[in-house]
Amino acid sequence: MSDRYQLWGGCFQEEPSDVLRRLNDSLCVDVRLYQQDIRGSIAWARELNRCGYITDNDYEAIHQGLKKVETEISEELCKNGRLSDPEEDIHSVVERRLRTHAGEAALRLHTARSRNDQSATDTKLWMMDNLTNLLNEIKKLILVLKDRAENEIHIIIPGYTHLQRAQPIRWSHFLLSYAWMLRDDVLRLEEQQCRLSRCPLGSGALAGCALDIDRERLACSLGFDCVTPNSLFAVGSRDHILEFLNWSSMCAMHLSRLAEDLILYGSQEFSLVKFADQFSTGSSLMPQKRNPDGLELIRGAAGLLLGDAIAFSCVLKGLPSTYNKDLQSDKEIMFRSYDKLLDCLRVATGTITTMKVNAARGEALLESGMLATDMAHALVRRGVPFRRAHHLVGAVLQRAADLAVDLREMPHEEYLAICPEFGSKADIEKLFSWEASVEQYEGLRDVRAAYRGRAVANSVARYARALLGG
Amino acid sequence: MSDRYQLWGGCFQEEPSDVLRRLNDSLCVDVRLYQQDIRGSIAWARELNRCGYITDNDYEAIHQGLKKVETEISEELCKNGRLSDPEEDIHSVVERRLRTHAGEAALRLHTARSRNDQSATDTKLWMMDNLTNLLNEIKKLILVLKDRAENEIHIIIPGYTHLQRAQPIRWSHFLLSYAWMLRDDVLRLEEQQCRLSRCPLGSGALAGCALDIDRERLACSLGFDCVTPNSLFAVGSRDHILEFLNWSSMCAMHLSRLAEDLILYGSQEFSLVKFADQFSTGSSLMPQKRNPDGLELIRGAAGLLLGDAIAFSCVLKGLPSTYNKDLQSDKEIMFRSYDKLLDCLRVATGTITTMKVNAARGEALLESGMLATDMAHALVRRGVPFRRAHHLVGAVLQRAADLAVDLREMPHEEYLAICPEFGSKADIEKLFSWEASVEQYEGLRDVRAAYRGRAVANSVARYARALLGG
Amino acid sequence: MSDRYQLWGGCFQEEPSDVLRRLNDSLCVDVRLYQQDIRGSIAWARELNRCGYITDNDYEAIHQGLKKVETEISEELCKNGRLSDPEEDIHSVVERRLRTHAGEAALRLHTARSRNDQSATDTKLWMMDNLTNLLNEIKKLILVLKDRAENEIHIIIPGYTHLQRAQPIRWSHFLLSYAWMLRDDVLRLEEQQCRLSRCPLGSGALAGCALDIDRERLACSLGFDCVTPNSLFAVGSRDHILEFLNWSSMCAMHLSRLAEDLILYGSQEFSLVKFADQFSTGSSLMPQKRNPDGLELIRGAAGLLLGDAIAFSCVLKGLPSTYNKDLQSDKEIMFRSYDKLLDCLRVATGTITTMKVNAARGEALLESGMLATDMAHALVRRGVPFRRAHHLVGAVLQRAADLAVDLREMPHEEYLAICPEFGSKADIEKLFSWEASVEQYEGLRDVRAAYRGRAVANSVARYARALLGG
Amino acid sequence: MSDRYQLWGGCFQEEPSDVLRRLNDSLCVDVRLYQQDIRGSIAWARELNRCGYITDNDYEAIHQGLKKVETEISEELCKNGRLSDPEEDIHSVVERRLRTHAGEAALRLHTARSRNDQSATDTKLWMMDNLTNLLNEIKKLILVLKDRAENEIHIIIPGYTHLQRAQPIRWSHFLLSYAWMLRDDVLRLEEQQCRLSRCPLGSGALAGCALDIDRERLACSLGFDCVTPNSLFAVGSRDHILEFLNWSSMCAMHLSRLAEDLILYGSQEFSLVKFADQFSTGSSLMPQKRNPDGLELIRGAAGLLLGDAIAFSCVLKGLPSTYNKDLQSDKEIMFRSYDKLLDCLRVATGTITTMKVNAARGEALLESGMLATDMAHALVRRGVPFRRAHHLVGAVLQRAADLAVDLREMPHEEYLAICPEFGSKADIEKLFSWEASVEQYEGLRDVRAAYRGRAVANSVARYARALLGG
Repeated sequence: MSDRYQLWGGCFQEEPSDVLRRLNDSLCVDVRLYQQDIRGSIAWARELNRCGYITDNDYEAIHQGLKKVETEISEELCKNGRLSDPEEDIHSVVERRLRTHAGEAALRLHTARSRNDQSATDTKLWMMDNLTNLLNEIKKLILVLKDRAENEIHIIIPGYTHLQRAQPIRWSHFLLSYAWMLRDDVLRLEEQQCRLSRCPLGSGALAGCALDIDRERLACSLGFDCVTPNSLFAVGSRDHILEFLNWSSMCAMHLSRLAEDLILYGSQEFSLVKFADQFSTGSSLMPQKRNPDGLELIRGAAGLLLGDAIAFSCVLKGLPSTYNKDLQSDKEIMFRSYDKLLDCLRVATGTITTMKVNAARGEALLESGMLATDMAHALVRRGVPFRRAHHLVGAVLQRAADLAVDLREMPHEEYLAICPEFGSKADIEKLFSWEASVEQYEGLRDVRAAYRGRAVANSVARYARALLGG
Repeated sequence: MSDRYQLWGGCFQEEPSDVLRRLNDSLCVDVRLYQQDIRGSIAWARELNRCGYITDNDYEAIHQGLKKVETEISEELCKNGRLSDPEEDIHSVVERRLRTHAGEAALRLHTARSRNDQSATDTKLWMMDNLTNLLNEIKKLILVLKDRAENEIHIIIPGYTHLQRAQPIRWSHFLLSYAWMLRDDVLRLEEQQCRLSRCPLGSGALAGCALDIDRERLACSLGFDCVTPNSLFAVGSRDHILEFLNWSSMCAMHLSRLAEDLILYGSQEFSLVKFADQFSTGSSLMPQKRNPDGLELIRGAAGLLLGDAIAFSCVLKGLPSTYNKDLQSDKEIMFRSYDKLLDCLRVATGTITTMKVNAARGEALLESGMLATDMAHALVRRGVPFRRAHHLVGAVLQRAADLAVDLREMPHEEYLAICPEFGSKADIEKLFSWEASVEQYEGLRDVRAAYRGRAVANSVARYARALLGG
Repeated sequence: MSDRYQLWGGCFQEEPSDVLRRLNDSLCVDVRLYQQDIRGSIAWARELNRCGYITDNDYEAIHQGLKKVETEISEELCKNGRLSDPEEDIHSVVERRLRTHAGEAALRLHTARSRNDQSATDTKLWMMDNLTNLLNEIKKLILVLKDRAENEIHIIIPGYTHLQRAQPIRWSHFLLSYAWMLRDDVLRLEEQQCRLSRCPLGSGALAGCALDIDRERLACSLGFDCVTPNSLFAVGSRDHILEFLNWSSMCAMHLSRLAEDLILYGSQEFSLVKFADQFSTGSSLMPQKRNPDGLELIRGAAGLLLGDAIAFSCVLKGLPSTYNKDLQSDKEIMFRSYDKLLDCLRVATGTITTMKVNAARGEALLESGMLATDMAHALVRRGVPFRRAHHLVGAVLQRAADLAVDLREMPHEEYLAICPEFGSKADIEKLFSWEASVEQYEGLRDVRAAYRGRAVANSVARYARALLGG
Repeated sequence: MSDRYQLWGGCFQEEPSDVLRRLNDSLCVDVRLYQQDIRGSIAWARELNRCGYITDNDYEAIHQGLKKVETEISEELCKNGRLSDPEEDIHSVVERRLRTHAGEAALRLHTARSRNDQSATDTKLWMMDNLTNLLNEIKKLILVLKDRAENEIHIIIPGYTHLQRAQPIRWSHFLLSYAWMLRDDVLRLEEQQCRLSRCPLGSGALAGCALDIDRERLACSLGFDCVTPNSLFAVGSRDHILEFLNWSSMCAMHLSRLAEDLILYGSQEFSLVKFADQFSTGSSLMPQKRNPDGLELIRGAAGLLLGDAIAFSCVLKGLPSTYNKDLQSDKEIMFRSYDKLLDCLRVATGTITTMKVNAARGEALLESGMLATDMAHALVRRGVPFRRAHHLVGAVLQRAADLAVDLREMPHEEYLAICPEFGSKADIEKLFSWEASVEQYEGLRDVRAAYRGRAVANSVARYARALLGG
């Protein structure tokens, strides 16, 4: 037999084939769990010790040994970026290394434990340790959006639907639409916490723990809120991972829409925003190019993260209950999505922090036709039924097109000929103010907070607190 | 121009082409929202009226007219299963029909409203009205699982990992693993409620409502908790639908695992369960066949619902902000997933309610090798380090295989030759009790509730309350 | 028992439950196969007759009876849009109806046949009958693109990468890029034909046909090229459907890219194209809006068709071999994708046929910086290494930006100060011709055909033949 | 500026931010293309040289320099597993390293080339070099299946539909069903070759090659069949990669079905097959366990590869034409799918080569009810209409169940009471032969080849040739 340390094999006469190992070994992925694996093992040993299944001496040997293993691995990773141990997974590596530090005591560590509950616990611990990084990055991005919204409240740009100019809006209104979207992502990820925070340790391979231990004390010692309620469910479920993947796919989709908007606004045709050099790249052939590569990668990432979520859903679909080896891909997919999303959030924040918005261009893109809705509402205020007003304004637009004049330039008689309720020349002229147009929209809570010119200091502060849930 | 009533077109000189209509028209899908559309329109008219934009008379005409439209549509649907109106969507149908009942007043209904906020509101109202049906079906299924778990607590079956016999478990332990899984589905869907319950009405096409209305009062009158905070976000987001689709895909995945287990257990090779005639089907060629078609359709549905969730994620990916027509598919996908999941839940509940479990077969499938883990724990209790115990038991299995005897039949000396800590013949014999094996797993909360033989009445009652969150 | 005709049930004592039926019944979907089902049944009866398993009289009764059933169903569908028969699927409907026309003979039709091979055959026949419609629509779209490319060869527009202006290109170059893309879709779908054209009839439920029939003659009589080679594979495989779904998802993705380009080019900011009224829609709130709804629906359809392909992949994943009921969703998904793609192709062709391109705007969007690459190549022709030329042109751009002048206006000395190889004033001026720029790209085969000014009649004709594979 | 070599940047004043680099840099992925990149660069330099754009000396310097770079990189990869160059991608690494070997000449290599056409060419070259590995592995697997089918032709097992015993089949029939399925995978991948084998080099960034080179000669020198016909299409399309991903997802799905069958057949309940030690793994807790981990990983891989195909489809959906940075993920996904599929094929081949099938168990699992269809056909042969025969046999089964006897034991009178056409006792007894049952299915071509007892040597040889397309 090889010198590879294997946590099983008592009734096997031959070693796994090389091709199986290539597919089966997961060390290059799950090495990332080494701290959680060691933390979980220390807690497990402590609980075995508290319940009398291992002696104080053995516990101390295990505890000290595991700390040494942690240091070793940490240093090797720092130096080489990976472990060169021949074992199939991090659990085997840790236990084999522990033997050199703790001797015989090491053989008692795995008592009544299975890799099924061990691995599930490690992954949950890792998620509890790391998902807050995502939350923090999202919150930073929200703050950047909020700050720009506050500082650039005077800028008016076209609001688009169907990518066609629709009505004038404040630039801040646009920025805050993403802030609110992202805030829901924060809320959604926080909701998953309660399910993540159930400790599977002590579920054994599937049937539970045969020894008399206190699983709640154990769970608590690891920072979990409570224990998983059913051992078959605990070892066979990856719902917390799928929840996370669905979540990150949705969050990435939000970023992809933001990226799409900014890529469009950054084209020469729109010219609404310009990205900083640090967040642009060039071309190896065309010297003049400045490309928004970061935003494009963010947009593409939505596809990648969706692929990850689906991949894992499809792995789970139709699987018999409890642990099946198909579940092994959980960690690789989860790490991949986590890393990509973290990078995307940082690039989004950096891009938005450093980009410049062109207020003059925003105004230049507005055109009087975008006030057609306001014009219809003006007729409504004078008693014209809306549906008729809508058609009358359509006729106005048509007439202006026929005359080849801007609405602002069309003779007053033309308006009156279409509908007398258009009122005096002054009445009509009053409509042609972008500022007045955007100021009339009072019905929305964030508009109330964000729109009122200069005196919004207090409300923005309140708004930020609301956004960030503080 | 055709006699089709269209909510737009003032500056168009030609009608939509037939091929565009085929792709664009949505009446056959969104007709399902007619009640919500009418309810939303009445609330909108009432709010316009309260704020002075339409008179009491006009409001009454609209209100009464819409009630008549509702009755008409309801009757036509009941009779023909569909509407034969030429309009493109239910909103146009309702408004055109309203004109015949309410005359001129009808032209005032759409004041300051866009189909963008109207349609988003209708869909949310529908979801608020209907998603509880799913919750109720899940709860029924949980109760069926719980009841069987309670009544069949004495049945012991093999617990499988990797579809290989692992350790004996209670049949109830298996059933409850799904009950807990489904309970999380209940929790998850309930969490979405807070985001669903924000009213988008009054967001207009994208920029908000230009008239001075009270959106919170409006939202409240429709049963929403609050209003959407940003109008661009409100008309362009379908996050509540994607959340629902991801949720239903996950719930369907759970059912697919349950289906897979039961299909396996219902095969002649396992013969653990037998399905009732009402939940089996036959073959057109093979007279003897009894097929678990319902469960197979449930298993397949996990694929279909996953496809729906992905389809919509992919539709949203990279879309510019606010409303784009791509969003129109939201309702078709959402209804499709809802209907399929509802049917699957009902078939699952029916199948499980009516199936028979074969307790004798459960026991017959157990084999002494499944007690290997207990045997290792017995050595652990006598001081053998677990890792060594694991290998020693491996050697015992190998020896029994070489001798071609069952573990129960292997001479006592053989055990002692491998490890003296196996103890006396009586010690070893004590291990060979399925009941004792399953009774030792006390660490899990639901085991505590569900396992303790006959006196579980109280705890099961408490358990059911916990499961159902009541 | 109900009056529902069921092709099985000899050893069942109870009927399927209502909830199972809702999930299980497929008549509303597979009714669409009635012509293929009847055609397949006639061929089957004929083969049974030829081999002596049914008499001439019985065959005639069946044959005539089935023709009558076909007429009946055709008329009912024409009138009501659906059948109201209580049966679970079209196969049962046809057989039950046949009994009224053919009496006892009808009981012999299903001899040695299973719904497994029958249904697989029907679906393949349907695909062989209908997929050419898709091919024809794609070819129409290619022709429209080719015709415009030929007629509008003089129009020069910016070519974009990363949505940033890159180099000037011919509008025709853009149009033809999609023609070539779609041509590959034609080739790919044609390749699937050889696998589609294997007849599964005679594979029975799974084990093959127990009677001595000539499967190749049977296959040939139905228009198949050959027979499926293995009966387990024949009844359990849906690879031809998955191939089709993957194909239609890819074709829809191509259309989505075309739609995205055109939506962008149709925005006011680009203003390169304007869509006809028949392929635009308006807003219920904003009178001035003209939205490219058709193109947006096409773009969204790429998501829907991807969802369908995935849904079915996921259904198939991990399924045991031969027929499992999960496969039943094949037809619903296939029809759905087929219909949607057909509609999208038609809308794409209509939109492109009727849209107007604005040549003057194309030229107005060009800017001298887009000739930076040509400028670098000019230096290369004078011996400057490309990598250096690339940086020198970068410096030119920078200098022009500092001086706030267009490249065309920058003093000749500035060029020479950066690099003497820029040559004379005339040399530099020669670079600033859009026509010269696009004419230099000779390396590409379609450029050779499509670019050479006026005398392209012959080559375009050849080109069209190549594109359409004729 | 940093010492990082960058192929662009002439008009940039700041370097990319660190967070952008993390997302943007692709060296750790595209390093795998170094041989193709160098091969492509040599061919490009040669073509530039042939057309007079670089001198013989420069070409030689580039050629020799690139060979040295190849050796360097090869050695570093061999030693460290990765490159530690600071550059963003392999193209920059190669060009920077080339400068140290070729001096000034290196600056001429990228003449008229863009990374857009370069990277597309590299990837295609890699695929042309490596996809045959997949074909070879599939062919090995087919051969293993074919060999077992030949050698184990006498083994009869239950054929299942709906995982319920249906009819007896030969074990070989089962094995060959997968051989045929995989053969189609071979055909499908081969069909993609014609589209893969078009050379994009010379397409520039998007507009084509401004220099007068011979693209067909260039393509030919790299082993391509022809050139891409449109430069916009060439740099913006990843259809060959998506085709491959869809293909590998389908192939993985086939393997997942094979894996599912074998996992089931390897369960203790079926006990039809036993896997070798080299292709089994054990449990860290349960000493007796032997798990089919390899097959489970194969089954799971179908989910992962589906995820990859979707991820990339979703990346492409709605993307504007030509190159967008979103496309950068193409290589990572393609390598990932390729590697996983290759591993899965090897594990499948190894598992099937080494597993044992239990012929006795196969027969033990057969039961007389599986001959019900044969019994119905026997009645058909005596003139009973099939539909009636089907019901009569249903009655026989019911009667036997009521009497609690096996069909073989049921008194002859009982048969006659149900239907006189059952004939004599001997007639009925003749039905109860598994061998006779499976031998009657003659209609299928592979049955003809594979079933005829001992004298199949010639036909199997022919069969193998057909399967492998040789």
